[in-house]
Formats: sequence, structure tokens, C-alpha cells
Amino acid sequence: MMTMNKRVLLKRRPKGWVSEGDFEFSEAPIPKPAEGQVLVQNHWLSLDPYMRGRMNDAKSYAAKAEIGEVMIGGTVGEVLETHDASFKKGDFVVGMLGWQQFGVASAKALRVIDVKAAPAQAYLGAIGMPGVTAWIGLLTIGDPKPGETVVVSAASGAVGSVVGQIAKIKGARAVGIAGGARKCRYVVEELGFDAGVDYKSPSFIADLEAATPKGIDVYFENVGGDVLEAVSRRFNFFARMPLCGLVSQYNEANPAGVRNLHAFLANRVKLQGFIVSDKPELWPPALKELAAWVASGKVKYRETIADGLENAPKAFVGMLKGENFGKQLVKLV
Amino acid sequence: MMTMNKRVLLKRRPKGWVSEGDFEFSEAPIPKPAEGQVLVQNHWLSLDPYMRGRMNDAKSYAAKAEIGEVMIGGTVGEVLETHDASFKKGDFVVGMLGWQQFGVASAKALRVIDVKAAPAQAYLGAIGMPGVTAWIGLLTIGDPKPGETVVVSAASGAVGSVVGQIAKIKGARAVGIAGGARKCRYVVEELGFDAGVDYKSPSFIADLEAATPKGIDVYFENVGGDVLEAVSRRFNFFARMPLCGLVSQYNEANPAGVRNLHAFLANRVKLQGFIVSDKPELWPPALKELAAWVASGKVKYRETIADGLENAPKAFVGMLKGENFGKQLVKLV
Repeated sequence: MMTMNKRVLLKRRPKGWVSEGDFEFSEAPIPKPAEGQVLVQNHWLSLDPYMRGRMNDAKSYAAKAEIGEVMIGGTVGEVLETHDASFKKGDFVVGMLGWQQFGVASAKALRVIDVKAAPAQAYLGAIGMPGVTAWIGLLTIGDPKPGETVVVSAASGAVGSVVGQIAKIKGARAVGIAGGARKCRYVVEELGFDAGVDYKSPSFIADLEAATPKGIDVYFENVGGDVLEAVSRRFNFFARMPLCGLVSQYNEANPAGVRNLHAFLANRVKLQGFIVSDKPELWPPALKELAAWVASGKVKYRETIADGLENAPKAFVGMLKGENFGKQLVKLV
Repeated sequence: MMTMNKRVLLKRRPKGWVSEGDFEFSEAPIPKPAEGQVLVQNHWLSLDPYMRGRMNDAKSYAAKAEIGEVMIGGTVGEVLETHDASFKKGDFVVGMLGWQQFGVASAKALRVIDVKAAPAQAYLGAIGMPGVTAWIGLLTIGDPKPGETVVVSAASGAVGSVVGQIAKIKGARAVGIAGGARKCRYVVEELGFDAGVDYKSPSFIADLEAATPKGIDVYFENVGGDVLEAVSRRFNFFARMPLCGLVSQYNEANPAGVRNLHAFLANRVKLQGFIVSDKPELWPPALKELAAWVASGKVKYRETIADGLENAPKAFVGMLKGENFGKQLVKLV
């Protein structure tokens, strides 16, 4: 049995683009769980765009990552030892144990998952935080009606792919914006979107117009920048824009905002920033519905898997550049 | 009795800053009301920032002004002749008869006002469209709670001055942003705001910070540009931003938007564009409440009056530059 715990620490706060050198590897003894705590061996680490924000020294909605500490991250793993009666050895649990092989957490910070109903790592994707993010943002802010047009950016990603598929379930037209022809084909041919638009194409503006002949009623925003600018020209009256992320801007020293604010005024658009953790009461109904959709094949997903903790920093940087395809995971066991 | 009707027509669509030369004067016979119509002699013309948008050839929420036609505008006047039984000669009515001395309108486009309860021109200001705009935007989108901080730009103007006074009535802290020390003193000393901040001052950013020690919960936006940028740095979690106008940008060929979109994400801010005419069902309760507040002195206002239709274009250009103080009117009789 292993006695040491490999970990990835935040070495320094990135200026502009994050690099692998902003992280450092470290080993420490496997931690001991105290009363009320559980020791978990992590099998999967989730990599998500929000982590980039946590690396900054800025006011935010959640605790920032601290220099010299284990990087923050969602994990799925197996209970090795428990000092809380609601868990047993061998249970699989989802939690926020960070970029490391082993972790301890209090019982209330962990949730047992059913690895017979779905693969363990799905609880970090379509039936985990990204899926719930899509569900809450689209249904409580976007509120798409049958026949309306829903556009989502980063459409092939963990959140965006679920947004478009829920839009279809609700009877809306789903248009995905993604980088490259392969991702655009994927959202149409495998996920059932009505159209995929490549933001890297020189004909992006015209392509977006062609894909949204009746304008845009809901824009689920994950990226910001030029994509937002193009979308804002297509807003219908009373459009809704759940603001989930701005991944194109996270590494920019001088982020672009939105130049076309007049479109929000003239069209009476509602823009609403949101964070999935603000609505804990919606997680159980969202997870139940997402699990049923995944089981019935109505919600599909794809994963990109990095092998081993040592590849986590590289995979993280690549994800922020759009090099992954679907949910970015790190396999630890 | 006069037989000719002096009018101001839109001569050409402005490129960038509007100028007096974009308008032309014209005379035409006084129009004859048809069955169901009313002939009105306009006593007051309202000048409002929204008119600048109507001069453009752009998709908007309302019909644009047409070249060679009478400029669009709100008016108060006296009924000279009526072919509708619900009006009588001598009634004072508010309507949208435009930049001219006389106009006809169908009965349903006019509303009788009580000129004993308030001066006729007040129905173009605090107890008219600007007042209702403040009421709807602040109360249905901003929704200020006692003790929260409400900031409004163009604070001494027809809309902004009412916003801050309603905020005070609702128990919130009211902070007005205006151009110049005189307007800032006015909103505090005469209107009862808690603070006035001069956006033209070199210490604007620091002054805004000092005036909002607990951050900003509601930002009623009339101007856009650098003022919005500064405000966005002070947003509290779950702040609300009714987007009413962007007057600093209406004459810009390349409008500034909002660079700090990240603040909307991290603080879960709701931005909502709105137009007062979208909510006709709210006009009666709003007007009733505004009239009571004006009568009791809880809502005060100030007017800048241009004398005669021939001065309307100049007054309009000046208003967009912030040269007026309070509600900008043109006296026609």
C-alpha cells in the first residue's frame, strides 16, 4: 500500500496566460481522518475553467487557491477509512478534494454516488457540477420556450453540450458555437443540435446569422469576447443571457467586455451572472433529471482523459485553449 | 387666430454627434381632425434622450423618425376641436404630437390631465413618462431593500432625480452621479440624496468609492461608458442593474460597452434592459403614486425651459451634452 500522497500545489499566481510552471508537484504523507472525517483515494480529478479564476488574487464568490496549497478541484474516489457512520469502506463519493491522490473531508462535504447507474467519472460531468450548471442556468435564467432559438458557446464542452441537449428536450432550436469543424460536427451529428458554428472560421458572423434565421432568444455564455459581440447582434426582443463563464478572457490582462451594450437596451435583454453553488436546493432535482436523461440516452457526453496526476497541469492549460473535447478529466488510479 | 403650423422636421440622419443642422423648420396648414380625432394646440414639448436613438436608421423598439417628417416627441396641450365625445374643448391632454405647434391624434392616443393638481408640464416629467420610467425600472428591476445602496447616473435629470427620491422613500441609500459640482450639490441639498458624485472630477473613482462604503446593490443606468466601468467595480453580490439609457454613447460612432463583464459574473449581477412603454399596465399605479409624492413634496424636480419651437434643436443638442438642469422642456405658447 502507498504511504505517500502525490499532490499538485499552486506555486505562483499567473500573470496572463497560466502555464505549467505555475504549479508544483509535492509529496506528503497520506492524511489521517479525524472524528467525523473520511479518507478517500481519488480515482478521478475534474478540470474546469472556473479553476483559473481561483488562481487569481481577486474578490470572488469562492475561496481562492492559496500559494503553496493543494489546487482546488472536484474529485470522485473510493472511501478507504471512515470515522462517520453514514459512509462505509468501498463507497464511491464525489467531493472537492483537490489535485491530489488522497484526501480527507468531513462527511457533509461528500456525497455517495451509484457507480452501477453510471461510470464514476460521469458524476464530475453530465450528472455532476457541469450538468447542474447547464440545468440551472438554462432553465432558471434562460427559460427557453418551444420554438425559440438557444445558442450556447463552448458547445462541445462539459457544460455547453448539456445546455444544447436540454434545449432540444424543451423543444427549442439548439445552436452550438465551438472551435473547429470537428467539434461543430459533433454537436450536430452526435448530440442532436440543430446547427454548429465554428468561431474560428473567417465566415463566423455569416454562419451564425445563417444558423439563427429567427434571431436568438437565449444565449448561454461560457466564453465572452468576440463571440459575445457577434451573438449580441442577433438578439431578439426580451432575450435572456445566462452568464456562466468568460473563458476566452480569463488569461487576458485587459479583458474585452461587451461593446454592443446598446443591443441589451434596445432589445430589453436580461443578462444574469450565476454560480451553480448559489442554488443548493436545485441540485437534487437537477441531478435526478440529468441522471434519467443520461440513462435514456437523451443526454450524451464525451470525455478527454489525461493519465496520471503528473499530466494535470498540462491538461488544464490545454483545456483553457480549447484543446480538449468534451469533459476534461484526469485519471488518477 | 393662427392658420399655419410651425414644425420641426428631421432633415437628415446624424453621423456621430447630432447638430442643429440635422433638423429643418417648416410651416404647414393647421391639420383638420377627422372623425374620432382631436385637434390640440401644444403648449409644451418634452425633449428626451431617447429621441436621439429614433433619429438613427436602426432596428429599435419603436418606430424611427422619418426624414422629412415631424420629429417625434411628447407634448402637453389644449384641445381646440374634438370629434370624439370623451374630450371637450379646453381640456389639457398629454400625447405624442411631436415637434410642432398643433397636432391631431386619435382619442386613444391622448390622456386628459388635471392642470389644477400640478402644472401642465409636470405631466411630461415627474408625473409623466420620465417619472414612470424611474418607477418601473427601479421598483420592478432594481427592487431596492431598506439599507441597500442605490446609485443612479444622470442623477439630476428628469429620470435620475426621481430614481434617487424613490430610493429614499424605500429606505435605501441614494447616491447620484452627475456632471459638475452644482448638479451634485442639488441632488443632495434639494432632492435629499445621501451623496452626489461628479463624474467630471479627476477624483471620480475615489469619490464614488467614498460615497458607497458598503458597495452598490442597485445601479440605475442612464449613461454608460466610463461611469458604468467605475460603478461595476463596486457591485455587491446579486446587484441589479436596470438599463434605461446610454446617453454618453448615443452620438459615438464606436460606442464603448462594458469592459468589466467579469464583475457581472463573479458578483452574479442582473442587467436588464427595459423600455417604459413595454409595461402599459404599470402606468396607472405608477402615475398615481408619483402624483401623490409630488403633491406631498416627497418628489421634487427642476426644469430647464427653452422658449419657442425655434429653440428646440439647440436645446436638444445641449441636453445630450448635459447642459440642461433637470427636465428639458420647450415652451410653445
